[in-house]
Amino acid sequence: MQAFIEQLRAIVGDAHVLTADADRAAYELDWRGRYKGRALCVVRPGSTEEVAAVVRACVAAKRPMVPQGGNTGLVGGGVPHADGDEVLISLARLNRVRAIDAANNTITVEAGCTLAAVQAAAAAEERLFPLSLASEGSCQIGGNLSTNAGGVQVLRYGNTRELSLGLEVVLPSGEIWQGLRGLRKDNTGYDLKHLFIGAEGTLGIITAAVLKLFPLPRSRVVAWAALASAEQAISLLAAVRSGCGERLTAFEIISRQALAMVLQHIPGTTDPLQDVAPWYVLIELSDPAVEADLQGVLETVLGAELEAGRLLDVVLSASEAQALALWALRENISEAQRIEGVSIKHDVAVPVSSIPDFLQQAGAALQAQFPDVRCVAFGHVGDGNLHYNLSKPVAGDNAAFIAQTEAVNRIVHDIVAALGGSISAEHGLGQLKREEITRYKSALELGLMRSIKEAFDPAGLMNPGKLL
Amino acid sequence: MQAFIEQLRAIVGDAHVLTADADRAAYELDWRGRYKGRALCVVRPGSTEEVAAVVRACVAAKRPMVPQGGNTGLVGGGVPHADGDEVLISLARLNRVRAIDAANNTITVEAGCTLAAVQAAAAAEERLFPLSLASEGSCQIGGNLSTNAGGVQVLRYGNTRELSLGLEVVLPSGEIWQGLRGLRKDNTGYDLKHLFIGAEGTLGIITAAVLKLFPLPRSRVVAWAALASAEQAISLLAAVRSGCGERLTAFEIISRQALAMVLQHIPGTTDPLQDVAPWYVLIELSDPAVEADLQGVLETVLGAELEAGRLLDVVLSASEAQALALWALRENISEAQRIEGVSIKHDVAVPVSSIPDFLQQAGAALQAQFPDVRCVAFGHVGDGNLHYNLSKPVAGDNAAFIAQTEAVNRIVHDIVAALGGSISAEHGLGQLKREEITRYKSALELGLMRSIKEAFDPAGLMNPGKLL
Repeated sequence: MQAFIEQLRAIVGDAHVLTADADRAAYELDWRGRYKGRALCVVRPGSTEEVAAVVRACVAAKRPMVPQGGNTGLVGGGVPHADGDEVLISLARLNRVRAIDAANNTITVEAGCTLAAVQAAAAAEERLFPLSLASEGSCQIGGNLSTNAGGVQVLRYGNTRELSLGLEVVLPSGEIWQGLRGLRKDNTGYDLKHLFIGAEGTLGIITAAVLKLFPLPRSRVVAWAALASAEQAISLLAAVRSGCGERLTAFEIISRQALAMVLQHIPGTTDPLQDVAPWYVLIELSDPAVEADLQGVLETVLGAELEAGRLLDVVLSASEAQALALWALRENISEAQRIEGVSIKHDVAVPVSSIPDFLQQAGAALQAQFPDVRCVAFGHVGDGNLHYNLSKPVAGDNAAFIAQTEAVNRIVHDIVAALGGSISAEHGLGQLKREEITRYKSALELGLMRSIKEAFDPAGLMNPGKLL
Repeated sequence: MQAFIEQLRAIVGDAHVLTADADRAAYELDWRGRYKGRALCVVRPGSTEEVAAVVRACVAAKRPMVPQGGNTGLVGGGVPHADGDEVLISLARLNRVRAIDAANNTITVEAGCTLAAVQAAAAAEERLFPLSLASEGSCQIGGNLSTNAGGVQVLRYGNTRELSLGLEVVLPSGEIWQGLRGLRKDNTGYDLKHLFIGAEGTLGIITAAVLKLFPLPRSRVVAWAALASAEQAISLLAAVRSGCGERLTAFEIISRQALAMVLQHIPGTTDPLQDVAPWYVLIELSDPAVEADLQGVLETVLGAELEAGRLLDVVLSASEAQALALWALRENISEAQRIEGVSIKHDVAVPVSSIPDFLQQAGAALQAQFPDVRCVAFGHVGDGNLHYNLSKPVAGDNAAFIAQTEAVNRIVHDIVAALGGSISAEHGLGQLKREEITRYKSALELGLMRSIKEAFDPAGLMNPGKLL
């Protein structure tokens, strides 16, 4: 064991092999405090070659490995198991922007760059890297790629997968796959990058990526609309899409319950509309042209919808400050929920057209089994992706309710599956849903996944016990 | 052998197993007449279950299979080998549109639907299916998926890969993988659909797909601009993107040589501009809003470029008829070339920023070795994808030149590879480039591809000798 640790030290330098409990602690616990593991050691390689050498050393010593980015995941995918057996490989020191090619609209970054750093590097060249999530200050792009992260602009720009052109990956053998291509078109065989994206580090360690950039938006408008039903959100989405095209950057649904929690717990927030409504949507248009008449375009569409009685009320941002204030209502939902107390959370997707059915069926089924259950629903309705969080209003009741998590999940996930949906829309499987998914994915598909794992990682040392 | 044929007849019906030479002929020759094979028989299953049963029968009899769509491919991927050993499985009878979900912006189609039929079904629901290519009247969506087809609107909407949400696939074992999901977000394991897309039928037979739809464009404007250099095309692309955002639907480059051939051979075409220029770009903006001021938006951008001397001249379409006339100049290049005579064609991609370097380097290297060589370059410059076709002006010289195809390919492909490009941007590998790719893809990557092939098709019966 000591010889193995010495070998790692020889590769990355003494300072970058952490063995003391206190030094490892931050890497062994996920940020929500739900997964606590214990690693043999934490290794912090400083280059792709060092990652490869560390992997080869682990393979030689038959040591399992856990790659870790910013440790902001929600499913325990980057946290080691408790047995103290695994080598945790932190990618944090691979944090260089290797290149920006503005004419090709690409940026080449190392896995340990924070998402915010990638955004900033793009902005410095008058370009947008559109991936955006709450944890962007600390999450790392390697983790975003490994979990195919989503966020609030997927509707327009796609998931992390769609934003990726090429990858560099250290394979479970310790070999380096050089797939750092900056091409929009390349039909020369199986598209390997798509296997590594979303694989949660089980097929290899992503060390760098070529990502797509876009023109920097220079104007935007945000609307906050009140709706009588979730059905209206779906028809409004279609109307806004038809009327506004790809200017539509975000289309987020917020239940009254979710808004009420924000208004109660987050200082400085106010209800933008006078009357209470059961549902709201936040709509954002943006455009790279400075003088784009987004206000006019959106007013035309929403005016017609208002007149036809398909929305109850609406307000448009007249300034960037107002736009930010409306976004704050959406972005503070998670924080308000944290203050409110523990809840059972779901990250699900269904076809956009099935969102009303999902809400109706899940709400009714839960209410029947758990009277007074409080459903806080919000999310990326334009992607069919809802965050659907459940709690009971009274603390004592809630504790008993939380103890029923498995039964609650069964109700929600069974309805999602019956509607052709996904039980993990943007967070991945990790440790959290690795068993659960076996109920919903066919044995055939799980078998295909296992055959790929076997082909890439026959020794099974790469992030074992996650995803599969 | 006869027993095997009888078994196939029992599955699909007598009328759908073709064994006579005359009946098989059309399936055994690709449309350009470059690949002539011989199949044991042609089988035309009418459902996914029949495809699966045919595959199981072939597996039991250890018979290799060749799936075929509209037989419009350019690399011989869907044509059998000459040994008369293979069962050609035509997907033409799987041609139902299974469902359209307008609110989810998805269409579910069977593999044998022609691309034009998919477009028409979408349009009937006021939606756009944006994949568009010259062969759209006869190519089938299963073939488009298996070759990850590109076309003229990739810049805005992506390749076939990006337009796909879910697949149904008959695996080489004869099992049916049900992956027909209509979800924008689904992070529950390895994304298998991306393995089958672009696999040219070597990992299984795609029988159906869920595809993305978009709002139907209701206004468009086309511009034809004359440029002094290819460099100017790259900077103009950046300017149009920044000024027009995602309204930009197409950005095609055309060399004077290519335009001259069209003007010479295609009746009714006229040069839209007075003076001769070395390069042209065709720019299209479109928008789902009827009254979108595309003309104004494009005039603003192009006016500034003209004033700054970054373009020589420009004309904008003032009517749909003018838009069509400008497009006809671009779309008739291949036909004009066919009339002009045989040439050595390349379908290559490089980073957009490297297009001027590619043109300069390839032109110089070819000229040095083959004086008077005529380079006809055109294509999807917004995707970094050029069709680069070479011939000699005098017929006798040209025959000698064509005999040097391998030497010419080496020059062009080596330069592409040195610029980090792809030797097959949108046509695939098939039989044509299956050997060639081994020069340019690393042994490691080819090994990973082979390990996937081995995992999915251990008997090696699914379209052998194509791609890999």
